[in-house]
Amino acid sequence: MKIQSQIGIRQFRPRGGFVAQYQDLIREKMIPYQYEVLCDRAPGVEKSHVVQNFINTGRALRGEDAGDGFYGMVFQDSDAAKWLEAAAYSLALHSDPELEKTADALIDHIAAAQDVDGYLNTYYTVKDREKRWENLLEGHELYCAGHMMEAACAYYEATGKRTLLDVMERNAAHIYDVFVQNAHPGYPGHPEVELALIKMYRLTGNEKWLQLSGHFIDIRGVDPDYYRKERLKRTWTVWGSDGRDPEYQQSAAPVRQQKDARGHSVRAMYLYTAMADMASQCGDATLMDACRTLWQSVTARQMYVTGGIGSTVLGEAFSVDYDLPGDTAYAETCASIGLMMFASRMLEWEVKGQYADVMELAFYNTVLSGMQADGQKFFYVNPLEVVPGIADRAKTHRHVKTQRPAWYACACCPPNVARLITSFGMYAYGESADTAYCHLYAQGDVQFKNGVALHCETDYPYGFTVRYQVEKGGRVAVRIPGRVKAFTLTVNGKNTEAPVRDGYVYLRLADGDQVMLVLHEKPRFVYPSPRVPDLTGMVCLMRGPLVYCFEGIDNGGNVVDLLLDPRGEIREERFSDGLVRDTVKLEVGALRMADTEALYTDEAPACTPCKAYAVPYYLWGNRGENQMRVWMGKA
Amino acid sequence: MKIQSQIGIRQFRPRGGFVAQYQDLIREKMIPYQYEVLCDRAPGVEKSHVVQNFINTGRALRGEDAGDGFYGMVFQDSDAAKWLEAAAYSLALHSDPELEKTADALIDHIAAAQDVDGYLNTYYTVKDREKRWENLLEGHELYCAGHMMEAACAYYEATGKRTLLDVMERNAAHIYDVFVQNAHPGYPGHPEVELALIKMYRLTGNEKWLQLSGHFIDIRGVDPDYYRKERLKRTWTVWGSDGRDPEYQQSAAPVRQQKDARGHSVRAMYLYTAMADMASQCGDATLMDACRTLWQSVTARQMYVTGGIGSTVLGEAFSVDYDLPGDTAYAETCASIGLMMFASRMLEWEVKGQYADVMELAFYNTVLSGMQADGQKFFYVNPLEVVPGIADRAKTHRHVKTQRPAWYACACCPPNVARLITSFGMYAYGESADTAYCHLYAQGDVQFKNGVALHCETDYPYGFTVRYQVEKGGRVAVRIPGRVKAFTLTVNGKNTEAPVRDGYVYLRLADGDQVMLVLHEKPRFVYPSPRVPDLTGMVCLMRGPLVYCFEGIDNGGNVVDLLLDPRGEIREERFSDGLVRDTVKLEVGALRMADTEALYTDEAPACTPCKAYAVPYYLWGNRGENQMRVWMGKA
Repeated sequence: MKIQSQIGIRQFRPRGGFVAQYQDLIREKMIPYQYEVLCDRAPGVEKSHVVQNFINTGRALRGEDAGDGFYGMVFQDSDAAKWLEAAAYSLALHSDPELEKTADALIDHIAAAQDVDGYLNTYYTVKDREKRWENLLEGHELYCAGHMMEAACAYYEATGKRTLLDVMERNAAHIYDVFVQNAHPGYPGHPEVELALIKMYRLTGNEKWLQLSGHFIDIRGVDPDYYRKERLKRTWTVWGSDGRDPEYQQSAAPVRQQKDARGHSVRAMYLYTAMADMASQCGDATLMDACRTLWQSVTARQMYVTGGIGSTVLGEAFSVDYDLPGDTAYAETCASIGLMMFASRMLEWEVKGQYADVMELAFYNTVLSGMQADGQKFFYVNPLEVVPGIADRAKTHRHVKTQRPAWYACACCPPNVARLITSFGMYAYGESADTAYCHLYAQGDVQFKNGVALHCETDYPYGFTVRYQVEKGGRVAVRIPGRVKAFTLTVNGKNTEAPVRDGYVYLRLADGDQVMLVLHEKPRFVYPSPRVPDLTGMVCLMRGPLVYCFEGIDNGGNVVDLLLDPRGEIREERFSDGLVRDTVKLEVGALRMADTEALYTDEAPACTPCKAYAVPYYLWGNRGENQMRVWMGKA
Repeated sequence: MKIQSQIGIRQFRPRGGFVAQYQDLIREKMIPYQYEVLCDRAPGVEKSHVVQNFINTGRALRGEDAGDGFYGMVFQDSDAAKWLEAAAYSLALHSDPELEKTADALIDHIAAAQDVDGYLNTYYTVKDREKRWENLLEGHELYCAGHMMEAACAYYEATGKRTLLDVMERNAAHIYDVFVQNAHPGYPGHPEVELALIKMYRLTGNEKWLQLSGHFIDIRGVDPDYYRKERLKRTWTVWGSDGRDPEYQQSAAPVRQQKDARGHSVRAMYLYTAMADMASQCGDATLMDACRTLWQSVTARQMYVTGGIGSTVLGEAFSVDYDLPGDTAYAETCASIGLMMFASRMLEWEVKGQYADVMELAFYNTVLSGMQADGQKFFYVNPLEVVPGIADRAKTHRHVKTQRPAWYACACCPPNVARLITSFGMYAYGESADTAYCHLYAQGDVQFKNGVALHCETDYPYGFTVRYQVEKGGRVAVRIPGRVKAFTLTVNGKNTEAPVRDGYVYLRLADGDQVMLVLHEKPRFVYPSPRVPDLTGMVCLMRGPLVYCFEGIDNGGNVVDLLLDPRGEIREERFSDGLVRDTVKLEVGALRMADTEALYTDEAPACTPCKAYAVPYYLWGNRGENQMRVWMGKA
């Protein structure tokens, strides 16, 4: 039932444009900076020790002195994997011999850290060797393996070099032996290896990897009590988890019976991604039904307007339907990256605009918000409201940062942002044997395996005109965002009569055709469902896929005392200020409530008409600490 | 500097009216029921074992078999103390030989559980004797002693019997020896004994108790690191506290230097109450300044409109200024009782209406909300919004109950409500050598020590006419609530010209005078300060001192989809429904937003004009689980 799939990383080449600027930032700043972090050479940043962990493990395996041994979280290896994956995607976009040399050297360290039986994990090799595969709940061995498999696939695709792929195939064979051949009853506490194995299967054609992935998906939650039993068998824990909350790692029921997205949101996304991948790979309609149900649970009842998901810090998790507090939102950057992955895999079975719409929303808002405009600081948590004095001081808001820190002890988000942005083309374009799919608008050249070749030009997400120069013709599907009420689509200057089907217009194009899509977009007010108690009477602003926010710096200090007039006009203005560059600022009519010393009064607050100014949410917090709010009261 | 003080418990006798109905409920239902709980004879309720703890301890001290020893929290004794105090107040209001017999018997058990050196605490006598005074941080020994001293004072005042007072004077003498004579460096982790010692000083005239209270107040926070050091000296904890958060128990600075109310809200209230008491007792202006500063911090920046305080479950504590979420509010019943105590003591130094206003607000809303209308179920936590589906399922809302449970493992609130309501007269009336103070409106007869005698009649808080029949004349101060913009005050039918000074009208009355106060009150909309981000654009309803709330049962199911029209008229209607009896329901114009399946839409929600109905907040949750909301969106 696989209708289409992501293009390969080498099939898209950016030629300027919005996302390419970010890709340049990643290549020029973030990847080198993150490598310095991994090598503990970045000043003032949490110690990483990742590279040293591999070096020390290799020495230990060769019988040499392991130096200072292992340092970091049990999942420390995954930082190297995500960095390598981002480096691979970046190398596919832009040749960079020095980066490739660095990556090759790191891969050599990784290869040297692999045990003779194929096992690969520095923590469990150099530090706690006897603990291997004892703690699937917290141990992250399969999680790290999965990320390294993704890196191996990416690096092979980008460079043709298969050292790491060979390492990870040996590793996968070892895992297969442990879990399938020798029937270890466990499965990943943090899903990830499932989706990675499918990637590796697609790249190598080795059915064992597909089978192993299917094994992990199918066994999950069959015994909802598995992790508690596992815990009782051992004397140690990583964080003290007793395994009594199966919802946390999506093991409360077999995956095909799960109806509500619950528990740790990143784990959920990585699992659902693999489920959707597996469903389309194998034509498994039952699995696809579960994916659709979970998709609805996530996006129709538990998603912030910014595409953020996982609203509570307690377990970094989904809360319950319609519980979407803005100021204490968790909305982890990685979770929105995971949501993009899930959406991208849902498109494999059914090309429906809703998946691409959510993918785009998550990207342009929460994912990009995860990174400072200079590419060197990062948000793990993406709140929809920040009021200094509360956000930085209340214990309930401890997870919320009012400014992006440079790095985290648990550094999952920054390298995840890097690998996502550098692989943006794979999310933007898909293909089947007979059709080229344009899911997102991404400027550059794309060469589909089915022969179609397009050159795309656009100022999206700020401009709403998208031009496709058809280098090589064929059947092309162009997405029309669900929010767009009117558009013009011309081929060689002539309006097309093709209808919109499930969010896409299907065109048969010839070599040399000129396609122009104009989305008739204006900035707009957006309203929440009355089912969301936290948002009663609130309104927010959007322009295209960009959610806007109001920051103190643009509004004379405070924004919590502003009430917007949703009947008024929204004016646009090109705007640059410090790190916030080349954006569009929005101006709306508003009332400013007079400050009252009294907490409660019998008089409606005195209001003064004023203008309120908003900038795109993804740019918030780039100009110092200040009040920020997405959802505003109405005048 | 003590201008006035509470009247004694025997000086006020209720004669019907609103509060007397509650006092009857306490006497007829709650006190007998709670005694059954304390004796473990109430079916389906958490085991208490309180009475048995005293019996077993007495046996152990006599060298007999201690039976099943101790069971419960380290502060289990305090449940008996609070029950006894409530029983004492109830006996002062209404003679009840059977209740008195029960109380006498309990007191005998308590007396028998006192060690020869005066030490009294069942946990540390029958269970962990060697741990005495080692853990001031968590041990609650001084807390339990304080509650028992309060009970002893109340029981002596009510009945003239001094068995328990003698026990507690011996206990206080022991504590004096330990902490003053032998210079134990500790002070109460949970303040309470400070205010109790002042009560006992006032009753007995023994200056040692005043000195001991002053010692505990003055030493507090002088070494902010005291509790951490204490922790390092012992090998055991009660709950694992490391003593590293001095703010939690208000020991981050000497009390006179504390500016912001922070930490556990009940501890804070009990401490501030003692500080205000001590300040007025000793004319300590510096201490009073600190009390004023803390009062402002609590009531002007951190109090819910319901008089609830302590907005976060994390530490059952104050959060920071203006952080007042409604759905995750903690707003513990005991904290509002503590706030009434603090307010009542602030009035000792300066008779200002703001203190009585807050005392009244806390009483008629959060304190009364703590109890089911049948007197047999209780709220510990008093949220301002409940949405079933979220409130009963989200992990962030775990402390919130949508229905009052019958009892709690940590059963501080129910007996606290009982003792507060039965002693309402002491909060309502105060006196100095030359003036009788009417702080709150309470129907009944009050005899002041200065000779003034009044008979008060009123339907308050539903009716706004208060009549005072002067049995014996003198100078009388009658409070005019700060919210009241107009009133009529007549003496023998003639308007008085006396001005309002700091919220009070001072009258010189003769025997037989008839005073009539008519507060010109209408139901009103109340607005929050723009400084409270959680309340932007919201409005609530009040009538007199009563905050109103909207419940699903009165509004066709949902209330989160209602927007009130604050320009419309508020209509009143007498209303009874199940346990909700003899109340006034309010009707306001509103819009009901149409339900939308989509979480977010570009269209303003379709709205249908309707009526919305509100009942007093203190009555919420008496008719089954449903949506409840105090703050509503505006149309």
